[in-house]
This record gives sequence, C-alpha cells and structure tokens, in this order.
Amino acid sequence: MSAASAARRTNPALDVVVLEATSYIAYGLCGLPYYLSGVVETADDLFAYPMERFTKDRGIDVRTAAVVTEIDPDGRWVVYRQGERTHRLSYSSLVVTAGASPVQVELPDVGADRTFAVRTLEEAIALRGLLDAGKVGSALVVGAGYIGLEMAEALVARGCTVTVVERLDQVLPTFDAEVAAVVEEHVRQRVDLRLCTDATAPGLPTVDLAVVSVGVRPGAALAAAAGAQVGPAGALLVDAEMRTTLPGVWAAGDCIAPLHRVTGEPAYVPLGTTANKTGRVAGTVAAGGSASFPGIVGTAVVKVFDLEVARTGLTLAEARAGGFDAVATDVVHRSRAKYYPGGSALHVRLVHGAGRLLGAQMVGCEGAAQRIDVLATALQAGMTVGDLTALDLAYAPPFSPVYDPILIAAESAARHLEAS
Amino acid sequence: MSAASAARRTNPALDVVVLEATSYIAYGLCGLPYYLSGVVETADDLFAYPMERFTKDRGIDVRTAAVVTEIDPDGRWVVYRQGERTHRLSYSSLVVTAGASPVQVELPDVGADRTFAVRTLEEAIALRGLLDAGKVGSALVVGAGYIGLEMAEALVARGCTVTVVERLDQVLPTFDAEVAAVVEEHVRQRVDLRLCTDATAPGLPTVDLAVVSVGVRPGAALAAAAGAQVGPAGALLVDAEMRTTLPGVWAAGDCIAPLHRVTGEPAYVPLGTTANKTGRVAGTVAAGGSASFPGIVGTAVVKVFDLEVARTGLTLAEARAGGFDAVATDVVHRSRAKYYPGGSALHVRLVHGAGRLLGAQMVGCEGAAQRIDVLATALQAGMTVGDLTALDLAYAPPFSPVYDPILIAAESAARHLEAS
Repeated sequence: MSAASAARRTNPALDVVVLEATSYIAYGLCGLPYYLSGVVETADDLFAYPMERFTKDRGIDVRTAAVVTEIDPDGRWVVYRQGERTHRLSYSSLVVTAGASPVQVELPDVGADRTFAVRTLEEAIALRGLLDAGKVGSALVVGAGYIGLEMAEALVARGCTVTVVERLDQVLPTFDAEVAAVVEEHVRQRVDLRLCTDATAPGLPTVDLAVVSVGVRPGAALAAAAGAQVGPAGALLVDAEMRTTLPGVWAAGDCIAPLHRVTGEPAYVPLGTTANKTGRVAGTVAAGGSASFPGIVGTAVVKVFDLEVARTGLTLAEARAGGFDAVATDVVHRSRAKYYPGGSALHVRLVHGAGRLLGAQMVGCEGAAQRIDVLATALQAGMTVGDLTALDLAYAPPFSPVYDPILIAAESAARHLEAS
Repeated sequence: MSAASAARRTNPALDVVVLEATSYIAYGLCGLPYYLSGVVETADDLFAYPMERFTKDRGIDVRTAAVVTEIDPDGRWVVYRQGERTHRLSYSSLVVTAGASPVQVELPDVGADRTFAVRTLEEAIALRGLLDAGKVGSALVVGAGYIGLEMAEALVARGCTVTVVERLDQVLPTFDAEVAAVVEEHVRQRVDLRLCTDATAPGLPTVDLAVVSVGVRPGAALAAAAGAQVGPAGALLVDAEMRTTLPGVWAAGDCIAPLHRVTGEPAYVPLGTTANKTGRVAGTVAAGGSASFPGIVGTAVVKVFDLEVARTGLTLAEARAGGFDAVATDVVHRSRAKYYPGGSALHVRLVHGAGRLLGAQMVGCEGAAQRIDVLATALQAGMTVGDLTALDLAYAPPFSPVYDPILIAAESAARHLEAS
C-alpha cells in the first residue's frame, strides 16, 4: 500500500490497482504478537488506515483475496485468481510487493489445524480466538528468532506453558553467540527452551498448539519464473530505484534483496521499515516520479520479555564471513547515572575492522532500542572507532551515565586498536 | 579528578596534586536536584568513587578546602589558601579545572541565608536538611533554564509550593521559542511560572527560601589575570589538546570554550560530559601523553517533570545569529507504533541550511533523550537532510513507529527543500 499510495501521489491520473492475496491490507504485521498477547486490544487497532482511506480518498482499486498466479513482463499482464474466477490484468508498470512466506515445518504430533505461522492477520485472529476461549494451556514455539521469541512472550502473557525449540545452538541466530547468550538466560527463566533441538524430536511435551517461525522465503517465485534475476535467499535483485531486471517491473518489501551499505552487496533482511521505504520508492518511480533507496545497514530491534535486543551493521560472524578482518569489543555499562534509580546493565558489542565500525549489538532491560540508532547513523556515515569516542551524546542522570555505554564501548575498542 | 586520574595513568611517576576549593571531590554535580528531591537517597550515593580511590589507590595528593588565589605561569607556581594559611606550590604542568560559579542575584525579601544556588554539594546538603526538616512550604526559583526547572521539579516533589520567575519571555532560553512553548505549558500545570519577570519584581509571593539559577560564569579569572586568552563568555580558549595560550597551562571543564564543530568557532556550553572528556584530554597531554578533543556539537538533555527535552547543534536563533541561512522544520509524531500502549507525542524540530543539518530539538514524554543522539551523530558526520531520510533506524512496535519521528521530520524537511 506504500507503493500504491506513492504512485497515486506521483500521478493522480494513474489507474492504480492493488492485488492482495489475503482479506486485509495495510495493517501492522509486526503488531501481531501484541494483538495475541492482548497488549493490543482489537485487530482493528492494527490497521494503519481504514480501507476507505485507500479506496475512496486515494482512488486506489484494491482487490482482496486476489492471488496472482502468473506475470508476463513481455505482454505486460498478470493473471490472478479471485475465488473461483481467473482474471487477466494488463499494466504499464508492475510493482511486485509479494512479501515473504513462512518456511513450513510439519508437526505430526500437533497437526496442521493447530499449527500456526502467524504471518497473516487471518491466522492471528484465529489464534487469538483460541486464546480468548481459554483453549490453549500449552504451546510449542518452533524457532527462536525475532518472531519466535515475540510469540513465546505473547503466549506466556496469556498464561500458556511454553516450550521453545531451536535447531541451532543459540537463540536469535542473527546475533553473535555472546550477545544471544544474555537473551538465552533471560528466556530460560520464562519458558522451556531447548536449543539444538528439532521440532519433531522425541521427548517434547504434548501441546495444545504450535507456532512455527523458522524464517521466511521471499515471495519472488512468480517474478523469477518470468525471468527476473534473484540474489541472496532467492530474493529479487533491484537497483536503487527498485527496478528489477525485467523491463517495467519494480519490486519492494520482503521479496527483495536491497543493497547493504556496509558490505556493498545485496542482502536479504526482510523488515517492516525497509518494506515501507522501498515500497514508496518503487511506487514513486513506477509512476514516473523520482526517488531512490540508498540501502540498508541491517538495523533491527526486538523486545524479548523484559529485554531490548538490538543490532545494526554486521555481526562478528557476518563480518568475518564477508571477508573483513574484524574483531569485537564487548562492554557492560549502566544505562543511567549509577545513583539514579531504574537503570540497568547494558551489554554493548562493537564489531570493527581496521578501525572502521562494521556493526553493533546491544542487549539490556532499557536503552538498547534507541541507542542502536546512534550506531546505525555512524555506520551510514562510515565512522571509525575514533569518531565514536568523540560523539557529543546527551547526558542527564535520568537518561544515561556521564559516559554513555556507547562511549565506553568506543573507548574500549580504541584501546584495543592501540594495543594491537 | 578526570584530569588528575588521566595524568596518573599517563605517567605513574608523576607527582599529581589536586587543589579543590570545596570539601568534596568527584561527585555528580548533575545529580544534586535528584538528591534534593529524594530520588537519590543520600549524598554518599553521588560520589563516583570514595576519596581513597584517588588518594590511596591512585596516589593522587588531594587537598580540599584549598582555594587558589594566584597563578604565575612564568615562575610556574600557584598560591592557595587553606584555612588560615597560605601556600605556594610549584608545578611543571598546570591544569585549570576551576569549573564555573553561579551568577548571583540579591533577593532582599528572602535574605542571603535562605538563598541557594545549589552549585556545590555543601549547599545541597544544607538545603536538603531544611527540606527533610519540613521547613520549606514555599520556594522561589529564579531562572527557568535547565537547573532552574530541575530544581522546581525537585521542590514540587518535596511538596513545596513553587514560583518560578524568568526574565526572558520563554523557559529554557537555549531552545527555540516554539519548542520552549511545549515545556512552558507543561511547567505551568505544576508551578506558578512568571515569564518576563525580574526576581525582585513586586507582587511575588513571600517564600521560605529561594533557589537562584540564572546561569554560570566560567572560573577563568585567575588564568585570565595571568595572561591566558579568553573567548565566549570569558571562558578560556584552548586548542584540541586543551592547551591554553599560556605555556605549561592546560584547562578543561566548565571554565573553557571548546570548539563547536557546527560553527567551527569556540563556544561556551558548560556541561558535565564535555567537562569529563576535556579533563581526561588535559590531564593526559599535561602529563606527556597524547590525546585530543575534537569539539562539541552542543548536545544537551533535561528532564522537566514528565517531559524529556533535548537539543543538539544550533537552534534556529543560534544558526541565524551565526550567519547561516537557516530554516526550521517542525513535526509532531508518535513515539511508538500507534497501536502500542505507552507512546506519546514527540515534537521534533530540525534546523537546516542549504540542505545541511545544523541542529535539532525534541520534546515529549518519552523518546527525546536518546533520539537526540542520532542527530548529534549526524551533525558530527556533517549529514544532509537527504542523508537523514535514508537512515536505517531500528523498528519494533514497543519502541517506535515504522517511520521514526526523526525520519518523519527529515522527510518533511526534504519536502520543504524541494518546494523552495
């Protein structure tokens, strides 16, 4: 809908048609765990705008339950199915915003009817209905990534006994093990966490339902079948104006691999912010306007029970895999002046190579979510560790210690460089 | 003490002597309002370290109640008074860290014995004693800057009826009027606020005591009398290694005017973070080591009752006074996803000229204190408004909306530029 709205703003005379596979548009997908936990009261709260804002106010032709089955970039038409009927729709510009679909795991002991991916509002409504009806005493969460841990938190909030299984040997596989270990300890106090464990392993408890969140696959199949080039994870390759390699076809959101500004290579990091921004750019350019997306630096944050866990840039593992001669500097420092109540320990990890900042990770009960943005900004600016030590960060006792944890980490990294 | 400790680290063989005019060293001056309010229980909590950490562990010769009365940079000695006695002390390197002293205002109706500046721990202990004894029912706060408003908050927390007078026509004179107006409204709901009012104006209520906080003057007099060059506000001019213009004399903290990286000129912005950092640099270099301070960007934050109020760089008024062809862009946006509870409106003002970011101000019930650091980092990097729109900031519903208020402000500023 970001793309459609941008296209409409760019060219008010354009016919803008949206084909949406589900029944709902423009809702906060990232809010689903909070709708399930009850923090968000009703599904209606999740909608960015009512449907009429798009259809009536903006004159966008929104067709829901419309599943696209074919793209023909030469003839410039798509085929879609709506209920029993199949339609062919011509276009002058096509924007593929097919999102991503959850990787599925079969759980014979639970059964498909009680296995949820919670990737759509429909599913969330169904699951919330079960929770509200008091029908879920125990649950299995498969996968300990962002969504898996958010779902575990939501289910615990609803009084469920929760088991989380993860194939790998750490939670949050997109973090370095040292940072993930802090999260792991926190999670273990709240759920039955089993690492290095397959979802179908023997000995798992019998549960009322399961939530599977073992990652997503980009919805790139149709465009790829039509000849569009794909990159990491099979996501569509795009230029800075969100053009695919097919003439007249743009793409945006969770189905693309945009440029990663730290590596200079395309990367598949499907997140809501990037989806919104690239949607706007694709819609604007596809409608004849001018816009561009300079890329991501890989920033993400997740609330895991009482912890804020955040990252930007490359982890140490990613940096080394990417050929950087990288090291990590870890510090733990207070989030506020030590005499001011309410502060807590904040773990900061800086990843750097040859003095250049390559990434950062933070975990703590407060202060990680927004501090990570300082380092995201520093990454975009190409700052060095030395530059970080010079940052003029805000200080007042209720908000930070006089040397912010970021500065403490930067000083530590600078000393590391001097010593090496 | 930052300078002394840095000197000790740099050269373990050095004799390091500290002459301190008061009875206490190395405490959190910025914590005094919270000690008065009771948020910080005891004065002991405010000390960074016990005295022995400096004297015994680090071998620093700390002489308290030692008031320096003369500096002779040619002979390399200082004169100081301790009790009844006067001493002369030779040095090879001198670091002037004389801080700043409060501008005094005479209040005949209140009397000097019931007028406090709350710039030293001694004074804070005396005032806290009066508050604890239940002897303060009403108080006058003179000056509505950072400290004045923090003191007003502390006194209200202790159950006092508080009148705040400010000579100027706005609170927080280091903010633009549009941002200060948000704070003013908030303050008015909690105290009797009188703008454009002199402290000795007729019609002010009779009070039990007064707190005067109308700014500070750098403690530069002795060094200036010895020939050191001074700059803005009469503060000592220093180079990046904290050298004054006198040979063998360094300076740091609230008595210097360091480089402002946005204007390229020295500026007097006495704040605790800069004091700590410049102290370290001065102590390191004075002891023969190598360090430098690249300057400030003018970042500050203050808690005013339930508000976070923050700034970095130049205000619009400062930018224009500094010769920049500057404009301001204001937006108000939610601090969290709209469906996530606990969020509030955040007012963001960006100051920019010819597309370059020059400064920012923020005010809101949450999210200003740490978001300002993103813009402080952007300022240090010399970012443009266009660069800001591309920032890859962290998003999760508990922490921010999908378009962070910073991005909303940047987009608005970019549209302003396109239109002009």
